[in-house]
Amino acid sequence: MKLSELARQIDGVFTGDGAVDIRGVAGIREAGNGEVSFIANPRYAPEAATTKASAVIVAEDWAAACPATLIRVKNPDEAFAKAAAIFYIPAPVPVTGVHPSAVVAQDAELGAGVCIGPLCVIESGAKIGAGTVISAQCYIGFRSVIGDKSFLHPQVSLREFVKIGSRSIIHNGTVIGSDGFGYSVDGEGVRTKIPQIGIVEVGDDVEIGANVTIDRARFGTTKIGNGVKIDNLVQIAHNVVVGDHAVIVSQVGISGSTTIGSKTILAGQAGISGHLRIGSGVIIGPGAGVSKDIPDGLHVLGAPAMPVDKMKRTHANIMLLPKMRERIAALDARIRKLEEGGQSKV
Amino acid sequence: MKLSELARQIDGVFTGDGAVDIRGVAGIREAGNGEVSFIANPRYAPEAATTKASAVIVAEDWAAACPATLIRVKNPDEAFAKAAAIFYIPAPVPVTGVHPSAVVAQDAELGAGVCIGPLCVIESGAKIGAGTVISAQCYIGFRSVIGDKSFLHPQVSLREFVKIGSRSIIHNGTVIGSDGFGYSVDGEGVRTKIPQIGIVEVGDDVEIGANVTIDRARFGTTKIGNGVKIDNLVQIAHNVVVGDHAVIVSQVGISGSTTIGSKTILAGQAGISGHLRIGSGVIIGPGAGVSKDIPDGLHVLGAPAMPVDKMKRTHANIMLLPKMRERIAALDARIRKLEEGGQSKV
Amino acid sequence: MKLSELARQIDGVFTGDGAVDIRGVAGIREAGNGEVSFIANPRYAPEAATTKASAVIVAEDWAAACPATLIRVKNPDEAFAKAAAIFYIPAPVPVTGVHPSAVVAQDAELGAGVCIGPLCVIESGAKIGAGTVISAQCYIGFRSVIGDKSFLHPQVSLREFVKIGSRSIIHNGTVIGSDGFGYSVDGEGVRTKIPQIGIVEVGDDVEIGANVTIDRARFGTTKIGNGVKIDNLVQIAHNVVVGDHAVIVSQVGISGSTTIGSKTILAGQAGISGHLRIGSGVIIGPGAGVSKDIPDGLHVLGAPAMPVDKMKRTHANIMLLPKMRERIAALDARIRKLEEGGQSKV
Repeated sequence: MKLSELARQIDGVFTGDGAVDIRGVAGIREAGNGEVSFIANPRYAPEAATTKASAVIVAEDWAAACPATLIRVKNPDEAFAKAAAIFYIPAPVPVTGVHPSAVVAQDAELGAGVCIGPLCVIESGAKIGAGTVISAQCYIGFRSVIGDKSFLHPQVSLREFVKIGSRSIIHNGTVIGSDGFGYSVDGEGVRTKIPQIGIVEVGDDVEIGANVTIDRARFGTTKIGNGVKIDNLVQIAHNVVVGDHAVIVSQVGISGSTTIGSKTILAGQAGISGHLRIGSGVIIGPGAGVSKDIPDGLHVLGAPAMPVDKMKRTHANIMLLPKMRERIAALDARIRKLEEGGQSKV
Repeated sequence: MKLSELARQIDGVFTGDGAVDIRGVAGIREAGNGEVSFIANPRYAPEAATTKASAVIVAEDWAAACPATLIRVKNPDEAFAKAAAIFYIPAPVPVTGVHPSAVVAQDAELGAGVCIGPLCVIESGAKIGAGTVISAQCYIGFRSVIGDKSFLHPQVSLREFVKIGSRSIIHNGTVIGSDGFGYSVDGEGVRTKIPQIGIVEVGDDVEIGANVTIDRARFGTTKIGNGVKIDNLVQIAHNVVVGDHAVIVSQVGISGSTTIGSKTILAGQAGISGHLRIGSGVIIGPGAGVSKDIPDGLHVLGAPAMPVDKMKRTHANIMLLPKMRERIAALDARIRKLEEGGQSKV
Repeated sequence: MKLSELARQIDGVFTGDGAVDIRGVAGIREAGNGEVSFIANPRYAPEAATTKASAVIVAEDWAAACPATLIRVKNPDEAFAKAAAIFYIPAPVPVTGVHPSAVVAQDAELGAGVCIGPLCVIESGAKIGAGTVISAQCYIGFRSVIGDKSFLHPQVSLREFVKIGSRSIIHNGTVIGSDGFGYSVDGEGVRTKIPQIGIVEVGDDVEIGANVTIDRARFGTTKIGNGVKIDNLVQIAHNVVVGDHAVIVSQVGISGSTTIGSKTILAGQAGISGHLRIGSGVIIGPGAGVSKDIPDGLHVLGAPAMPVDKMKRTHANIMLLPKMRERIAALDARIRKLEEGGQSKV
């Protein structure tokens, strides 16, 4: 597509050669010849000077140097999203029906318009809601139930009795309903498995990333509320309850029986101990280690986690330690002088 | 089941309406109408006041308010386990034999009563012991050997020459025998793969969680002892040796060639450097970062990890920094006063 | 093989019984009867005294006690590698061609000598280069492209439009091209998925471990350079760019849109925030938490990460806190004495 045509479609004004052929979109650092990029976050503004993009979408008041042809727009973020959509070729819509290579139990219930991909296994008593897509090589366990219009990417595993709501998305390699990590231990330190006979229940409009693990409850239910968003490689232990619209970033671990309030955000690699009650609207910073309850609305950081103000002061205090040591040495010298002065008076 | 009948079966005494219909069990926070819950851990006692459970199993001396019908028992934890067992419908026992969709090498040896699930791949020379279950979509590599009565959940991958003992359980998505992360590096920082020609050997009565990775040895054996319990998303590198009955909680990472002693416990997200010797009966706290050997029986915390007493004192000292600064300022003021006093005397 | 013959083949000189039968290799700690081990790293030298190996390969100047027969060589590491190769039975070379159980789209393009293993799914428009092996149960998405002589181990998932270079290796359970974790959020904290319409591009000579997740870009490309080595359970978010020959150790997490320079090394469990620019030749220590740009060549440690010297001084300062408190108390006592002296003078 000619740059001039692209500019027209995204309501932008270009300065330079409108005849350049644009074939795709890319980030400002990696864009090359024939690609259009954008600057929305001021953080990336310095990158404009050295970009190899053929065109860059910028705000109307952009003033810095850039070797690429500029397309000025009201909202660079939105305009770039439009440009990306123009060049996007979607993957084909999955074909409705059961692929002949899938192994589907006779008594599984499949709703209207369901897609069961190649080499899936659907066990006895499973129910798949209308319009739901089970992509290739998934495993749906005994009496597991999925709502309508949900989408499982390839190689997802649901163990028995797992419930997934409607319009939920689960990415490749994720395991839901594996046994909780529960053992009784004898006097010799030898552990015996405690049967994990509960279930997992995932709400509506949930998205779960790739290679996530969510354990079934020891008894009762491990519960993921409606609208929750879970990133890749997250671990959610037995009997955890995650409130509606919570956000769990990648590699977070939540230990057994902890409750996470609604709309709470857990940043990447945070670790939460067991049996805690984390409030609603809480923000837990990246890599934080949480071993105590957190009330609603608090923002915590660090390991052990503490309120963000306290954490910042504490860190600042630590970084001032060299000065404190100097100050103590100076006091010492002044005292010595006083002491000597005193002695000299004697 | 009527509440009165449930109370009878768990040797409890109820106060209230025995005719209520109980249909299942749940945790105190998430239980709803028609469900029975329990309070065993005092941590959860305050939850009783607001529970939506129809019945709650409590200790005989329970005195706090609770809107639900109470069932008083000697041991609430055990009574609730009994109640859970009453309502539990187990998944069906896997069918003995080889599913026709599985791809099994002609020379694979299958013991008596083995179950090979749908769409499994069993490579040449593999041996599966009597009574072992290989669930759907597993991959058993060349000459891998599994003992008797072990259970592999769906989508487990064993690479070639992996040995698994008897009565061991492996959860979905776990990979055993992937190549160790080993490279030679030239002067330009370019890495060349070092062949990883060792194996992995997993003992008897081991349980390994979901999406775990255990690398094969560079040479020799990566070894997981008998009775070891490994949680989800754990990484065990090449040539690691884990002693009998050790416990490795989720998202722990153990680097190459480290030895973990028997009955040692690694809490969630701990990271252990390579070539270390961690003793027996050690406890490594959650998120700890270990870069030195640890003698038998020590309990360590923190990153860098240190003995738990020292860690707690260190943390307390850090939290006292604001007071130390105040104290230094006060000393400064007192010295100034002395200095001025001295000067005024002159 | 007789020990004497083994010694001959690795150019070693043995002292003791050359008739002992050696059947395999093992690490010094786990080696048993009939196995040969080695000591190359002085760290392991004390293990020689208690090894159960039948033979140990040591340097020519080895002087310490060892119950095993010693084989003295110039370079124990290299000699042991030779010994390991002697006893190594490789897994069979994958059979060229498409396994009849694989589900391969009619328009997929397969190069010469390609191997497509049992129960794979190859979607429409995929292209697999000459000599590439797709092992059992892999999923290759719509229009994904793999170069020549690459090797995918079982159960790898590539989503649509993923590009993999030549001579690259991907281990079991890894997911490439899952959606980035991107949402718009309304005033109520409810999140709506932002379409993730970019791709992932992996270079030549790359190795990616087991159960890794690499997300596709929101727009444009998540890019893994040539020669990059990625260990198990690593998370790479949308739009990350990893420079050539970078090394990413297990359980590292890299947040969205961050750039990692060439030959940079990220040690295990490090976490990198989003939108950062990490330079070339950087070393990020194990478990480090990085939230700021890092210039070329810097070695950082800790959370928050700081230059290694500064980190070590800071840690040393913290460990000196008890002494600082003693010193302050001593100053206090000396000031009190001066104060009392002053008062007594009045």
